[in-house]
Order: sequence, then structure tokens, then C-alpha cells
Amino acid sequence: MTDAADLTARLIRCPSVTPEEGGALALLEGVLADAGFEVHRVDRNGTPNLFARWGAKGARTFGFNGHTDVVPAGDPAAWTHPPFSGLVEEGVIWGRGATDMKSGVAAFAAAAVDFVTATPPDGAIILAITGDEEGPAQDGTRALLDWMAEHDERMDVCIVGEPSNPDFMGEMMKIGRRGSVTFRIKATGLQGHAAYPHRARNPLHALTRFLDDLIASPLDEGTEHFDPSGLQITSIDCGNPASNVIPATATAVVNIRFNDLHSGASLTADLEKRAAAIEAETGVSLSISANISGESFLTKPGAFVDLVRDVVTQETGHQPELSTSGGTSDARFVKDHCPVVEFGLVGHFMHQVDERVPVAQVQQLQSIYRRILERFFA
Amino acid sequence: MTDAADLTARLIRCPSVTPEEGGALALLEGVLADAGFEVHRVDRNGTPNLFARWGAKGARTFGFNGHTDVVPAGDPAAWTHPPFSGLVEEGVIWGRGATDMKSGVAAFAAAAVDFVTATPPDGAIILAITGDEEGPAQDGTRALLDWMAEHDERMDVCIVGEPSNPDFMGEMMKIGRRGSVTFRIKATGLQGHAAYPHRARNPLHALTRFLDDLIASPLDEGTEHFDPSGLQITSIDCGNPASNVIPATATAVVNIRFNDLHSGASLTADLEKRAAAIEAETGVSLSISANISGESFLTKPGAFVDLVRDVVTQETGHQPELSTSGGTSDARFVKDHCPVVEFGLVGHFMHQVDERVPVAQVQQLQSIYRRILERFFA
Ligand SMILES: [Zn+2]
Ligand SMILES: [Zn+2]
Repeated sequence: MTDAADLTARLIRCPSVTPEEGGALALLEGVLADAGFEVHRVDRNGTPNLFARWGAKGARTFGFNGHTDVVPAGDPAAWTHPPFSGLVEEGVIWGRGATDMKSGVAAFAAAAVDFVTATPPDGAIILAITGDEEGPAQDGTRALLDWMAEHDERMDVCIVGEPSNPDFMGEMMKIGRRGSVTFRIKATGLQGHAAYPHRARNPLHALTRFLDDLIASPLDEGTEHFDPSGLQITSIDCGNPASNVIPATATAVVNIRFNDLHSGASLTADLEKRAAAIEAETGVSLSISANISGESFLTKPGAFVDLVRDVVTQETGHQPELSTSGGTSDARFVKDHCPVVEFGLVGHFMHQVDERVPVAQVQQLQSIYRRILERFFA
Repeated sequence: MTDAADLTARLIRCPSVTPEEGGALALLEGVLADAGFEVHRVDRNGTPNLFARWGAKGARTFGFNGHTDVVPAGDPAAWTHPPFSGLVEEGVIWGRGATDMKSGVAAFAAAAVDFVTATPPDGAIILAITGDEEGPAQDGTRALLDWMAEHDERMDVCIVGEPSNPDFMGEMMKIGRRGSVTFRIKATGLQGHAAYPHRARNPLHALTRFLDDLIASPLDEGTEHFDPSGLQITSIDCGNPASNVIPATATAVVNIRFNDLHSGASLTADLEKRAAAIEAETGVSLSISANISGESFLTKPGAFVDLVRDVVTQETGHQPELSTSGGTSDARFVKDHCPVVEFGLVGHFMHQVDERVPVAQVQQLQSIYRRILERFFA
């Protein structure tokens, strides 16, 4: 059996901090090619990506999406073991990427290699692995999916291997995500002296009113499969050093994580309407630009969701919650290609100092993925 | 008769941008010394100031306070005439300080010189002229008043010669000023991911709530001699570049111009109480620091106010409004020494490009000051 824990450790030793490839995709490429996968590097604008397929193009295909890039390690001195050591000690693998998500990639790659070797299926398996999920992600999974469309490569279903369990294996799988949109609101008033406000129009007063209205009442109460939408002001900036001067402009940034009651467009329209009302009242112009990182989506419970849930329940003894919580992931891109669910490790240590994972957990994930493949092709 | 317009033009030619003396106080010192004034340079921490007294120390004393420093000229190319040219053309004196307030200083100096020469009074006249009213003002009029206290120099009444008329001579004199206090509010929450707000505490939400409460209702409706107090948010800053991160801290600056219903201390206590309520509700700490630039004050209508008002009415044909409007001035310091009123020119062009003043207006102010001195010592 392929040792997923060892592969995890070797991947950790590749310093693949976004956007560096760091040798991680090359390592994976070798492992998969050795097992008979057809491999292609699908780099775009300097972002490294790897496409691999076992079996015939056009056959019934199981897909896997993940990433080998990692967030920076911060101060290496803060780590118990060097962040790119991939040290295995007392059943624990240490290093950046141990949970997010070199282990997930290793567990699936190992499961797939063993599966096609032991019981070659009547179908195909695709791995679409990116080197930029943690960065801008413009040329990562998107580039892979674009390339696949151009080359008639299809997945019928796809698992994204991000850590999906908050505290223990089998706790949660994700069948969708809330959408995310970031609004930049620029308030333009009229500069003046703080003692003569009637000759000025204070952009900060209009902006404060606008923002307080936004946070005063919840966007919704949640839906069947989704938590309530959430709104966070992430910055307000003005940069006026003179306390006796009313500034001319100020800017706020608002991030909204929204469920299936909204879309990026509907929220933009709502904010623009609110801004127009404040503008009419105050004479301060509020111009809004929207950056939609992803729309909300849901893979409706059905055969594929049932398959994954049943295997996870069987292997872990816990029936996983079907969740749509958390931040965005590359599933937001994959969902336009085929039904997608997310299941991976426990996310405890992701992005933190001393990121690490138990060997047994990686092995358990490898078994789960193997069983999913067996059931899918049975 | 001493030519106040000519003295204004000569003062403008001294480039006394705060904190530069630029030759302005030296010029004035010569003019006053020649007329028999006892003169002292009262410099402190590099800030130039001039004290001048005609007559015996301890006699009944009329005082005048003003400044020779000016704000920067900005781009000289934007000016019709060079900002320090002191050009006199078609009855208009051009240049930085033409209205604020080299003309006011010149008008009083000329009036005083002529008065003591023509009809030496049984009393004394003091000019306390600073070279830093436009800057931090820590070592300007304050230094003069400190020095006077140390040297047993007293004024019984004082005129501050700042431009007090919004549009025409005789329109307004000032018998007090609102106070000014600047609050810096630092909100400290708990950093986190925008998708997981329950694990964070957003300082911007607490700050927005706090600020919106502040601007939602007026502080008061004004009093007999004062406009309503006014509150302006002059900056909000966070500096968080990551729209998916809830920041840890944010800062706001609030300036309040307050009337005699409040004090710097009462407003500080009020804001601290509001902050504590928000803190209890949100878990975000709001720490407040206050910088009180000046308390509000009022020179109660009475003999001195009547004298100035009557002379202005007689000389201009307009009975001036007794106002407490506008920003702060050095009257905030003088009021602790003796009753103080402000009367000067029309403020139209102060701090602007192409600052200028009609010769006739300077001469009219000179007449008014002369008549005030005559009436005071009659
Ligand atoms: Zn990840
Ligand atoms: Zn001034």
C-alpha cells in the first residue's frame, strides 16, 4: 500500500509557499506517472498546476481537486520543528501544509494509485491539483478547469480535499459554500474646517450612517442548508492628520458571506440603493465597487452526496453533517463543472504555527478515499 | 498720521510663515520703540514673540493681542501677485497676511502710536504680539502671558485683532468662543477571519455603532450667546489590506466645538460613558484620549463690550452682532488674564490664494481702534 503519511512528509519538505511550486507538483507528477497516470503541467501566468488522468478520456470519471501551495510559515523560530522539515515524530507529521492540505492531496493520490493498481476500474480518475489556492487563485483551479474544457476533459463528480472537519474525523462534509463579495465604498464629500461644518459635507458622517444601517439588522435568518449571511466591515480609512479639518474623502471595505437568498448582483443592487438614499440625504456621494469572489452554491443531496456520507459514516462511526459553512474554497470554481463535495482532514492547525497532523488521520482519510473510489466504480 | 496700510504692506514683505519671524516682529519693534514704547522680545523654545508697553507699568492698561505669523502661501504660481510682495495696486494690498492679520496688527500699532503721540493718556497700552498663532501655539500668546505674569504686567481689557467680520466691516464682534476638544478613540477587538465572525470581535462594528450614536442627535440646541455645539468625525483609520480578515484595531478622531453647556471634562466623561456601554455590549474595548484645545468662554456684555460695540456702530454704521461663532483663537488664552473681545477686518480671503485687503478697510480699522483708545482713556 502506498504510504500517504510518507508522501505527506515529502510534500511538506517542498517549500511551496504561494506562488512557489517548490518541487511539490513535480514530486506528485512522478508518483502519479509511475502508476500509469497521464500527467500535464497546466501552468498559467506563472502559476503552477498539475492535471493527471488515469484511464480513458471520456470514460465515467471521478475527480479530485486540491492544492499543494501553503501560506507563509511566519517566524520559523516560533515553530517547535522547522516548518518545512516534514518531521515525523511519535505518530505526528509536522510542518506547513500538514493539514492544509498536502495531507489531503497525498491521501487521495495514494488511494488512487493503490486502487488503479489493485482493481483497475472501468472508468477514469482525474486529479486537478493547483499551486495557487491560497493566493489570488486566478490562475489556479480556474486555469485547470479552463484547460480541461479546451481538452474535452470531464469529471462526473469531484471531491475537494480541504480540511472539512472542525474537531474530529467524520464530523462534517461540505456540500456547498456561502458566496463572498467584497464592497469598496468611497465617500466623497466637501472638505472644510471642523468649526464651520455648514460649509463642508463630511464623508465620514455619511459613511458611518451607511455602515451602521448595514450592521444594524441581519441580512437574513439562514435557509435549509445555509447559515445566515454575515456582513463584516473589514476596513475604514481616511488618513486625515488634521483634527480641525473635515476630510474630502473616506473609504470603507465590507465583506459579505451570503447564502442562497442572495447573489453578488442582488447585494450590489441593495447596497447601491442604500447609498443613493444616504447620498440624497447628505449630499455626500457614496460610490460602490463590488468584487464577487464567489456566488453561493449547493450540491443538492442525492446519489453522490449519499455515497460520500455513507462511506464516511462507515469508516469513522460518525454521520457527517452536510454543511455549507466556512470561507470560500476552490469548490466555488468546480461547482460550475460538476457536482462537488468537500471532505478532508480536521482543520485545527491550518494556517497556524506548529501545523501538524497525526499519521493515523492521514491513513484514515486514505481509506475513506479508497472506499469512495471502490463504491463509485462498483 | 501713521500709515497703517503702508505698515501692513511692509509687514507682508516679511516672510513670517510660522514659525519664522521673517523680520516682522523686528519691524514692529522699531516702529513702537520709536514712539516711546518699552519693547521686549519674549521668545520661548524658538518661538518669537514681542511685548511692548507705552506708559507706566501698573497704570490702567489697554491691551491688544495679535500675530504676525502667517500660514504657508502654497504654490506661489497660483497667486496673481507674489504672496510676499506686499504690492499695493488700485487701493488693494496683496499678499499672505493681508487679512489674517498683519493688517490688524498694523492698524492697532498705527492707532496707538498716533494716539500716545497726539494725546498721551493717563494710563498704559500693551501690545502682546506673537509669531505663532497659526502653529501649535504652545509658546506664542501663552508665553507672552506667562512672561507678563512673572513681570507684573497687567492688561485691564484686551482686544484680539483677528478678522471678526464675515462679509462687511461692523457686521460682527466676538465676545467669546466655543471650546474645542479632540477625542481619539481606539477600538481594540479580536482579529479573525471574515467568514468566522463568531471567533472574532470586530472593532469597526463597535466603532461604527459608537460614532453613529454620537452623530445621531445634536449635543444641544445652543444657548443665549452660543450656537449649538458641533461634532465632526475627522478621521477613521484601520489600515487593514485583507478584505477577508476582521482587523484587531481601528481608530477614530472626533472634534467637538462646544458651548457653555459643556466643558472638555464633561464631554470626556460623556464619551467615556458611551464607550463603556458599547464595550459591555460588544466586548470591544474603546479607549478614549482627549486633547482639550480650549474651553468655551464668554466676556459678559458690559462696559467694555459696550464701548467697542458703540465705537464700531458709530464708525461703520452697523451695530455688530455679539458672536461666539467660529474656530478658536488666542482669545482662549487671553480670557484667563482679563476681559477680551475680538474685532478686526473682514475675514474673506484668510488662508486663501490671493489674500488681499482694501487700503480703505485697514484705515477704517485704524480709526476704530483709535476711537476705542480715546474712549477708554477719556
Ligand atoms: Zn486549503
Ligand atoms: Zn489669525
